[in-house]
Amino acid sequence: MMADITPILERADANLPKSLDRLFDLVRIKSISTDPAFKADCRKAAEWLVAELNGLGFTASVRDTPGHPMVVAHHAGATADAPHVLFYGHYDVQPVDPLNLWDTDPFEPGLKELEPGRKVITGRGTADDKGQLLTFVEAARAYKDVHGSLPCRITILFEGEEESGSPSLKPFLEANAAELKADYALVCDTSMWDRDTPAISAGLRGLVGEEVVIKAADRDLHSGYFGGAAANPIRILTGILAGLHDEDSRVTLEGFYEGVEETPAQIKAGWETLGQTAEKFLGEIGLSIPSGEKNRSVLELTWARPTAEINGITGGYTGEGFKTVIAAEASAKVSFRLVGNQNPEKIREAFRAYVRSKVPADCTVEFHAHGGSPAIQLPYDSSLLNTAKLALSDEWPKPAVVIGMGGSIPIVGDFQKMLGMESLLVGFGLSDDRIHSPNEKYELQSYHKGIRSWIRILNALAA
Amino acid sequence: MMADITPILERADANLPKSLDRLFDLVRIKSISTDPAFKADCRKAAEWLVAELNGLGFTASVRDTPGHPMVVAHHAGATADAPHVLFYGHYDVQPVDPLNLWDTDPFEPGLKELEPGRKVITGRGTADDKGQLLTFVEAARAYKDVHGSLPCRITILFEGEEESGSPSLKPFLEANAAELKADYALVCDTSMWDRDTPAISAGLRGLVGEEVVIKAADRDLHSGYFGGAAANPIRILTGILAGLHDEDSRVTLEGFYEGVEETPAQIKAGWETLGQTAEKFLGEIGLSIPSGEKNRSVLELTWARPTAEINGITGGYTGEGFKTVIAAEASAKVSFRLVGNQNPEKIREAFRAYVRSKVPADCTVEFHAHGGSPAIQLPYDSSLLNTAKLALSDEWPKPAVVIGMGGSIPIVGDFQKMLGMESLLVGFGLSDDRIHSPNEKYELQSYHKGIRSWIRILNALAA
Repeated sequence: MMADITPILERADANLPKSLDRLFDLVRIKSISTDPAFKADCRKAAEWLVAELNGLGFTASVRDTPGHPMVVAHHAGATADAPHVLFYGHYDVQPVDPLNLWDTDPFEPGLKELEPGRKVITGRGTADDKGQLLTFVEAARAYKDVHGSLPCRITILFEGEEESGSPSLKPFLEANAAELKADYALVCDTSMWDRDTPAISAGLRGLVGEEVVIKAADRDLHSGYFGGAAANPIRILTGILAGLHDEDSRVTLEGFYEGVEETPAQIKAGWETLGQTAEKFLGEIGLSIPSGEKNRSVLELTWARPTAEINGITGGYTGEGFKTVIAAEASAKVSFRLVGNQNPEKIREAFRAYVRSKVPADCTVEFHAHGGSPAIQLPYDSSLLNTAKLALSDEWPKPAVVIGMGGSIPIVGDFQKMLGMESLLVGFGLSDDRIHSPNEKYELQSYHKGIRSWIRILNALAA
Repeated sequence: MMADITPILERADANLPKSLDRLFDLVRIKSISTDPAFKADCRKAAEWLVAELNGLGFTASVRDTPGHPMVVAHHAGATADAPHVLFYGHYDVQPVDPLNLWDTDPFEPGLKELEPGRKVITGRGTADDKGQLLTFVEAARAYKDVHGSLPCRITILFEGEEESGSPSLKPFLEANAAELKADYALVCDTSMWDRDTPAISAGLRGLVGEEVVIKAADRDLHSGYFGGAAANPIRILTGILAGLHDEDSRVTLEGFYEGVEETPAQIKAGWETLGQTAEKFLGEIGLSIPSGEKNRSVLELTWARPTAEINGITGGYTGEGFKTVIAAEASAKVSFRLVGNQNPEKIREAFRAYVRSKVPADCTVEFHAHGGSPAIQLPYDSSLLNTAKLALSDEWPKPAVVIGMGGSIPIVGDFQKMLGMESLLVGFGLSDDRIHSPNEKYELQSYHKGIRSWIRILNALAA
């Protein structure tokens, strides 16, 4: 049954100041999941969400896992035949270092006017993903405020380990499949095409994360005494990493491109209408030259092509001044973005085999796996997607577009495989939100119209 | 005039407990020259030395420089025609990180019995160079205790910036050339061949230090959104560093081997009699395979061949867990050990030109120079060297050997060029002293017999 939507949208508008206060409260909780020092904060964020949802009439609870807890909440629909949706978001956030590059305290959120009429919410997690998940909660609030009920039956799942590879997620889905299974999943952890154009993401790259540690001598050495004779683990590591790409920026691992298909011409043609260029895309971040495979657009490179990236490297003396040392070890964090049917475990093994082949016999190598998930390709033309497309197009200045996505949301694959659910990926982030970086922000417009968008989508899904 | 040496040596033996206390006092002063946080400690070390030397009858003073101060001290010889020697050492020490790898507090020295009859002095700077420089001071003390005079006229120069490239040294030598010029210099900052065999170093490699910073995007990026399109500065940097060596471990910089000559066959033959092998040399540090140019002995690789080493590298996320970030910048510290007539500034420029040629047009590179000095080759057969060789052979179980040296002591070149003085390099370090590393130590025997060695050398030089 479709409710009259105008009073609900108006209610969302009226609620906005308080909706913002709630987001600020949540951002203040330092729920960094990758750092054990913030374990208690992660739980605190989960408890905060449970209290909010119970206050809204959900039956919500903190659900323990071996890692950070899940939040699960249930609410009936207005009618017995209302569709059942599972909404997913994550309350954990990325680390904040380097702290000195933040203009404001990452955990003391605030509003900042970037230009007349354009306000942003600043703080770690405002865009990824606390602001996004609250758009849905606040949409439900406005709905209930006006109608006392919700148009769909809603199950909510908030995770606290998304930024650290979601180690507890699969076991949790498996153990609670009956409780979590819905008609489809709504996932709010993605971006708009631009400030005026909402987007539904239909393709997501997978991810394989690997940490590699090369160990040489049993201690740090003086490069005068031993230089020229003793193995230098940084040299070995840089040699290995430099060999990951060929001169055309293709990844050299054996079998890496197995399962990678060319994007259909029709889809590429659709992307071309978006008017994206390397100059525009890279210009935003101070660059201009695509660094990936030759003769492919930046949209193709980031949506439909696999990558190998070095996300971190360290070894030897990195402080001020100089130290003529040959380090005992060096390490790097490397990730691969996957597309099509690339197999994460095969790629992990190919990487390890390649690295091992390059390590001298008197040195050793250690590997640490950090998450692995295949790419996801959602159908480009389902009724779920078309319904959401229309609802979003009603809210925003420009019609919604269906796009690919460079990032990984492994949950989408898990929902598909483990719960047999299709996912709808709608989010209101912008490419300049600086997620994972200092000075993360979320547009006030994203928050406000995001709430209104979910009202429209829930309403349309119930029809 | 040659004094009766026996009572002086006995006096050094009797003094040893107090000599040790004095070394402990000096080691407790945290004179890390590369880190500005320890500026006051560096001065404190200089003041401590001045007080000790004045107490011994030297005219000593702290001499300011734009960086850490020098210590200069003078003492007349027993006779007007006594030779005039300049003794050089450095009171600054290397940083101590990683602190968690130290078994004892680096600045709380102590004695430790490694095996029955073999005691070592633990702490940062015990071997490099506080213990070494005090061998000379304590030798002078024993001499004066017995004779009330010194056999040579002695000038002492202690530096506080040796571990940070000696930026103030040349200007200081230039400004004080008349005061510092002596008949020859004695430098105590080198090692023995082994525990029984004293060594005089006749060849020292030079050093060029460079820090390179590659900057790409104007912020850290999410590798999902931007990966495949945006330049990754760690990838650029690893590519650059990996290209520094060819497959035979030769350095690839243009003109790098200009000025490098093959070691004379006769000298190499002498080295071969020392019985050094890759297994022994590298086995001490848990390695076995020489990493340098093929078909050269480890002695040749470390004494007579130039190198390129990466001393440190950092970029992106290096904390616990994983962060799918593309860093805004990455940096490395690189050093080159030089031999023969390699020109430090030419090599610095060749490195910079090579790096610039590899940096994409939309990225930038910054360089920071960290010291540069040519290699030194002292005459293999001078009377100074032969006198010292005999004196050392009297003290130690095995005769002294004349060796090459992998490390750099730029002062030797400066003494040669600026003051026209030949240097004698005698030191009592061992290759397992872990200088520049956690758990630095100095053998008690090195300290004790080192003191006795200088008594013998001073005595012989006066004859």
